[in-house]
Amino acid sequence: MNVTVSFLGLGAMGYPMAGHLARKFDTLVWNRTREKAIAHEAEFGSRAVNSVAEAADVDILFTCLPTTADVASLAPEIVSGAREGLVWVDCTSGDPGKSRELAEWLSRRGVELVDAPVSGGTVGAQKGALTVMYGGAEATMEEVRPALEAFAAKVVRVGDVGAGHAVKAINNALLAVNLWSASEGLAALAALGVDVGAALDVINASSGRSNVTENLIPQRVLTREFPATFKLGLLAKDAGLALDVAREAKAPTPLLAMLESLVRAAARDIGPDEDHTALAKLLERWAGAQIKSS
Amino acid sequence: MNVTVSFLGLGAMGYPMAGHLARKFDTLVWNRTREKAIAHEAEFGSRAVNSVAEAADVDILFTCLPTTADVASLAPEIVSGAREGLVWVDCTSGDPGKSRELAEWLSRRGVELVDAPVSGGTVGAQKGALTVMYGGAEATMEEVRPALEAFAAKVVRVGDVGAGHAVKAINNALLAVNLWSASEGLAALAALGVDVGAALDVINASSGRSNVTENLIPQRVLTREFPATFKLGLLAKDAGLALDVAREAKAPTPLLAMLESLVRAAARDIGPDEDHTALAKLLERWAGAQIKSS
Amino acid sequence: MNVTVSFLGLGAMGYPMAGHLARKFDTLVWNRTREKAIAHEAEFGSRAVNSVAEAADVDILFTCLPTTADVASLAPEIVSGAREGLVWVDCTSGDPGKSRELAEWLSRRGVELVDAPVSGGTVGAQKGALTVMYGGAEATMEEVRPALEAFAAKVVRVGDVGAGHAVKAINNALLAVNLWSASEGLAALAALGVDVGAALDVINASSGRSNVTENLIPQRVLTREFPATFKLGLLAKDAGLALDVAREAKAPTPLLAMLESLVRAAARDIGPDEDHTALAKLLERWAGAQIKSS
Amino acid sequence: MNVTVSFLGLGAMGYPMAGHLARKFDTLVWNRTREKAIAHEAEFGSRAVNSVAEAADVDILFTCLPTTADVASLAPEIVSGAREGLVWVDCTSGDPGKSRELAEWLSRRGVELVDAPVSGGTVGAQKGALTVMYGGAEATMEEVRPALEAFAAKVVRVGDVGAGHAVKAINNALLAVNLWSASEGLAALAALGVDVGAALDVINASSGRSNVTENLIPQRVLTREFPATFKLGLLAKDAGLALDVAREAKAPTPLLAMLESLVRAAARDIGPDEDHTALAKLLERWAGAQIKSS
Repeated sequence: MNVTVSFLGLGAMGYPMAGHLARKFDTLVWNRTREKAIAHEAEFGSRAVNSVAEAADVDILFTCLPTTADVASLAPEIVSGAREGLVWVDCTSGDPGKSRELAEWLSRRGVELVDAPVSGGTVGAQKGALTVMYGGAEATMEEVRPALEAFAAKVVRVGDVGAGHAVKAINNALLAVNLWSASEGLAALAALGVDVGAALDVINASSGRSNVTENLIPQRVLTREFPATFKLGLLAKDAGLALDVAREAKAPTPLLAMLESLVRAAARDIGPDEDHTALAKLLERWAGAQIKSS
Repeated sequence: MNVTVSFLGLGAMGYPMAGHLARKFDTLVWNRTREKAIAHEAEFGSRAVNSVAEAADVDILFTCLPTTADVASLAPEIVSGAREGLVWVDCTSGDPGKSRELAEWLSRRGVELVDAPVSGGTVGAQKGALTVMYGGAEATMEEVRPALEAFAAKVVRVGDVGAGHAVKAINNALLAVNLWSASEGLAALAALGVDVGAALDVINASSGRSNVTENLIPQRVLTREFPATFKLGLLAKDAGLALDVAREAKAPTPLLAMLESLVRAAARDIGPDEDHTALAKLLERWAGAQIKSS
Repeated sequence: MNVTVSFLGLGAMGYPMAGHLARKFDTLVWNRTREKAIAHEAEFGSRAVNSVAEAADVDILFTCLPTTADVASLAPEIVSGAREGLVWVDCTSGDPGKSRELAEWLSRRGVELVDAPVSGGTVGAQKGALTVMYGGAEATMEEVRPALEAFAAKVVRVGDVGAGHAVKAINNALLAVNLWSASEGLAALAALGVDVGAALDVINASSGRSNVTENLIPQRVLTREFPATFKLGLLAKDAGLALDVAREAKAPTPLLAMLESLVRAAARDIGPDEDHTALAKLLERWAGAQIKSS
Repeated sequence: MNVTVSFLGLGAMGYPMAGHLARKFDTLVWNRTREKAIAHEAEFGSRAVNSVAEAADVDILFTCLPTTADVASLAPEIVSGAREGLVWVDCTSGDPGKSRELAEWLSRRGVELVDAPVSGGTVGAQKGALTVMYGGAEATMEEVRPALEAFAAKVVRVGDVGAGHAVKAINNALLAVNLWSASEGLAALAALGVDVGAALDVINASSGRSNVTENLIPQRVLTREFPATFKLGLLAKDAGLALDVAREAKAPTPLLAMLESLVRAAARDIGPDEDHTALAKLLERWAGAQIKSS
């Protein structure tokens, strides 16, 4: 079988994901800024195409873009160029409700949209070891699984189309909560003269531990490096998507709701292009103390 | 050297902790309900004493009680019976400020108080594999370390007296935040028909993971068992201590502050003697959906 | 000039509003449940019509419905029957963004939509002394002002179409905040044995006073009457619209966001059809004390 | 009857309050900075004394200081100089719990402490038209009423000692909530281009109105004057006292709790010596829009 795939959106995540696909499949790549597609072709042996429509003449089309609005804006061209039976796998950290609407619209035009947002960050993308949160029919998942496994170590179906986005949004909101609350707590301890490095050491052997306390704060905050691999503005967007999920579910979520506003406030005050962990700087300013090893 | 120790407070944590001590040291035990001390003597070869003053005639005295108010209420008797050079190691999840005041009062009476709250739960206590968050002078820590290591796998000094309690309070507040926010998110996903077990599976391979999502929710909530090893009322108390820490530090902590009220509300609505994970039931009621595997 | 008007939606607000119109203008009335329209005709001399399209053959058409979704669902029929130059005045407590979209759609079909939500409650509606928050062109406002003044004592233009809904949503969110926070504070005072009636007396001579403390709590909570003139479920809906306004404005609003979830939680726990002031019962349950005069 | 009184603490409130007393009674005045007492003597014919003990040799002693800690620090000297039967009326916006403790301590030493915090601001103090929230025995209130009525238009007993402080704290917390939430809402409306002056106009004819929307925002925020008559740092302190009241009452108050942190954050970011209404500037910065008339 000679499956052909395409990848649209060669950002920090998409570029290496498409690279892994190109090692296993005939892979077309498209990017709004064409230079990146050319570079990808040179690096991975993919083929840079000139138009979205051209990229749609494949078996499986992947997108990985900033927002679902960006995804939806490509839909007419994709429909116009779509090969019969095209499956469109959207890896964007997207909007569940809008994706379901888009899926219905596409379904009437012969294209099947499924959502497959990923986690694992840029490191996971480079290693091809991402986790996929799949929303869509199970049969389709088995069909696209070989392609997904080019860049993913784990593929989990969480529900129908939109469900992948919903889980991803909640995951990222939990990341935001864990980050904000650990920053609150550690900044307070720092203000009292407690050794924050030692405090993290015991928290990480205790019930309050999380990925944030085990990895992000030691590697990015204590070191004062805040490397911008996942931007604060995007975390704020994802917290907003989680709030949309909760409201669509009619589930009262006072904590996630408040957090969404606070993360947006931090993005305003600290800068949307800073690393997401830099929201700690707002709490540090409020507490008058820095989260650093003594 | 023939170190003698005593342990006051043979609750779910203290009973096995004192058992580990009794295997290595001459150990006196005291409990408000004397039957427990008798049982401990029978089980571990400790010696049940009749009075707090008697228990103070040792080198190192341990307490593990519900609150710092309980601890402080024993202070006059302990002072009256204290052997010269007594070190009092308080393992209570206590109040940092009140412990500092008590330490000063005791210091003028020749007793040194240090705080050494533990984490690891009843399982860790039984295995003798707890983590100690030590607040007090470093020299004293080295002196009591052999005794601490009877029940602890890890001893970390986080600052002066009170600092152990402060870190423990923040740890437990983070536990409460992680539990509340994961319950909000998962109840919302459940209301939308997402497979919550699968969602947890991918969250636990992603950035939003925590001890709560990896262990507590799968073992206690998904199973609907909610075994009452750590009561919701005590989690509420600890969230209050964390708020005290933040306010003493003059650190604004909107999330921890709001959370403290919500956990108390849950303790009212669900019951203070339920397991702490049962706060999920309040979010489930609000969302109209249960967090369980499909 | 012989202006003819119509009114669609004869609920607790719309029924008396349309009554005032009928005293001054040829007035057609329509209601989903036709009995109400018949009764209105009998009581006020309006004319009950059989279809929405028929009701659109007027100079000015009014709607007052539960939600903007209800309003939008009438649009095709209104367009089909619209007299040339029809102005559609929507008095619903509606959604600003969706109203703007609807206004654009209608504009291309020759109908001008303006928003004119009202405040003053059922009492103000009966007296014809409502306040109108007008969103739309100023010239149109002058055109429809004589009709608005049939039921309104005050008409204020706050901006373009959608702005009236936005202001109404924020007003109702402030009502919700004031109600929730006063209930929190008074329930706490009650739990401490403070005389709540006396406390309200001084608060109402002090800086913390509001319509809630001056009118709603004395008349509805202290009396334990909670008359259901404005339902808790509708207050929750309006708090949600206010959150939409804030998010559209990209304004972080941690307090309004959290409040929106709490009001929805109260609607779940206390009942959506209870009076909005009954949210105090949730705070009373949490505090273990009732807000009543001693 | 020749009642003599004294007043300790001649700040922005105390200075004119003591002035009204001096017109009706023999009045001793004391202030930490003696110049103010001298000036008061010159302006109102009071008598500046040199020591706190001297000021205690009266029938009724008034205090009006920044915090209860300041009040308590004067207690030993007041006891040492107290005339038999001295009633001490504390007008500070103070701490209910600490005041009760102080009252017990004083009671054993023959001095009766009652709390009588006031509202009405500096304007009310100058006019002698304050509102007193009285906590203490009713009989004593009748005894001191003539003195209270020198500066107060309204005296309301709300409970036993401490209750006045509790009500004052809750009143000021409601002020803070109303101010914060109105600022959130109006900044959001401003960001959407709504006419904020017109919006306030209709809100003030609607259910969401409060002293904040009717007076403070029009007079202080819309004008951009922010006159520092009541400092943001003191509002933050009062919000903290309200949180203490709620926690002592064991009443969960998620909104007041969160608000306390946010007001402290605003005091950090905007400045504790700015007028309390200047917290709007933080919300304006977050929303990227100013609350001003268009």
